[in-house]
Amino acid sequence: MTFHDRLLARASSLGSICVGIDPHPGVMDAWGVSYDLAGLERVAMGTVEALGDHVTAFKPQSAFFEQWGSAGIAVLERCITEIRSGGGLVILDVKRGDIGSTMEAYAQAYLGEGPLSVDAITISPYLGFGSLTPAFDLAEANDRGVYVLARTSNPEGGDIQLGSTSLGTPVAQSIVDNATQRNHSTGLDAIGLVVGGTHETLRIDLSWYSGSILVPGIGVQGGTISGLASSFAETSALLVPSVSREVLNAGPNPQALQEAVERVLAS
Amino acid sequence: MTFHDRLLARASSLGSICVGIDPHPGVMDAWGVSYDLAGLERVAMGTVEALGDHVTAFKPQSAFFEQWGSAGIAVLERCITEIRSGGGLVILDVKRGDIGSTMEAYAQAYLGEGPLSVDAITISPYLGFGSLTPAFDLAEANDRGVYVLARTSNPEGGDIQLGSTSLGTPVAQSIVDNATQRNHSTGLDAIGLVVGGTHETLRIDLSWYSGSILVPGIGVQGGTISGLASSFAETSALLVPSVSREVLNAGPNPQALQEAVERVLAS
Repeated sequence: MTFHDRLLARASSLGSICVGIDPHPGVMDAWGVSYDLAGLERVAMGTVEALGDHVTAFKPQSAFFEQWGSAGIAVLERCITEIRSGGGLVILDVKRGDIGSTMEAYAQAYLGEGPLSVDAITISPYLGFGSLTPAFDLAEANDRGVYVLARTSNPEGGDIQLGSTSLGTPVAQSIVDNATQRNHSTGLDAIGLVVGGTHETLRIDLSWYSGSILVPGIGVQGGTISGLASSFAETSALLVPSVSREVLNAGPNPQALQEAVERVLAS
Repeated sequence: MTFHDRLLARASSLGSICVGIDPHPGVMDAWGVSYDLAGLERVAMGTVEALGDHVTAFKPQSAFFEQWGSAGIAVLERCITEIRSGGGLVILDVKRGDIGSTMEAYAQAYLGEGPLSVDAITISPYLGFGSLTPAFDLAEANDRGVYVLARTSNPEGGDIQLGSTSLGTPVAQSIVDNATQRNHSTGLDAIGLVVGGTHETLRIDLSWYSGSILVPGIGVQGGTISGLASSFAETSALLVPSVSREVLNAGPNPQALQEAVERVLAS
């Protein structure tokens, strides 16, 4: 079953919300755990245990695991195993982007069969949409997905994304158009997009796009679930709103974490 | 001593060449080692042992270590320790790029004091040059460096890089200008650039830029050391040409690896 179909199937019962696992110092403080490897493992595993049956997907943020070196990556491996063994999907936020054999190695690392094998990853197109082809190919071959950064809502996000490509197309639109074209030609919808939810004017046309759209910034970053309907009115693509701190800060109590998810869903 | 000064000091005796450590299947085959963790460690450590006293810097390519999960990252940690204990510089090629607390975590991971602490990393600006500020800040505070992707020589590299920002500046030029401005204001030259060496017309003005320029693509990718003089005629910045396969494929014999470096230097 393709990644997109697995996502649709699980979202049909649990809704499409995705919980980001971003164990940064503030979250570890909220959990009352020390800012070390044990604290990292407690937050990551505690979040999955509390919410594994309640949400469609988790989005671990690689940076917070890389920070602790190989021991942190070992925690990430255990976290991935825990999510997948419960039937949840893992969208690993790594924002990788490279060329040639290096991009192939990144694809193998996360979309192959190694210890960090996940359902989908985020990738970054500064080296050109086409440079990411090894990830597209492997995602499609292995029933995985990728989410290509298109339009982010951080203040500096528009500098490049609202500019133009060498052919004169707006940059974010060119990412959307390339993803649309590839998804239409394969019928697999393996190519997802990352589009920020809090930016008022997205200035991109998503009406032809099929696939799923990962929307970070729900919760403390200002986005709401109800606000998505108007921000993304023109698309019929599956929206995967991602919430991190708003939920994580409610831990470690499992019921409090579950209630935080409910609150976000009602926002 | 700042990263830039350490780089200048070591380059004054050894030349500024940087050897990429990209243990991909072809290289492991050339070394006669199996394509597994033991093979990865043999290539990474063997390259450092053979060339540690002969080159200024090594550029391990993170993707080839990530592919083996936490065990691969543990090899990367040992490789970094080996390079630094011999006095060599480590430019870790990770091409990270994110925002806010996530970018801070990436900066801490590689430019802080953790197990993956290195001299410099590569970073990617699709989310805006300003989104990389946590890495600039920490590099400057901790005497480290960053190399921001500006202009790459892969076929699709120009799609975004030769386009325009939202303010109408050519994208690659805007990266150069932002890096130039920051280096001039701090005087630390912590902000390096990645600019491909094989692209005939760079179409960017580097004449005001101070700092160092990492130039991949020397060797089998078609670039030569003598060709750099004309490609980069207008800049007085320190060029750090990076060579990978051309050297690595000569292994595992240490003398053959050293001779491969000499051949590249004479190219």
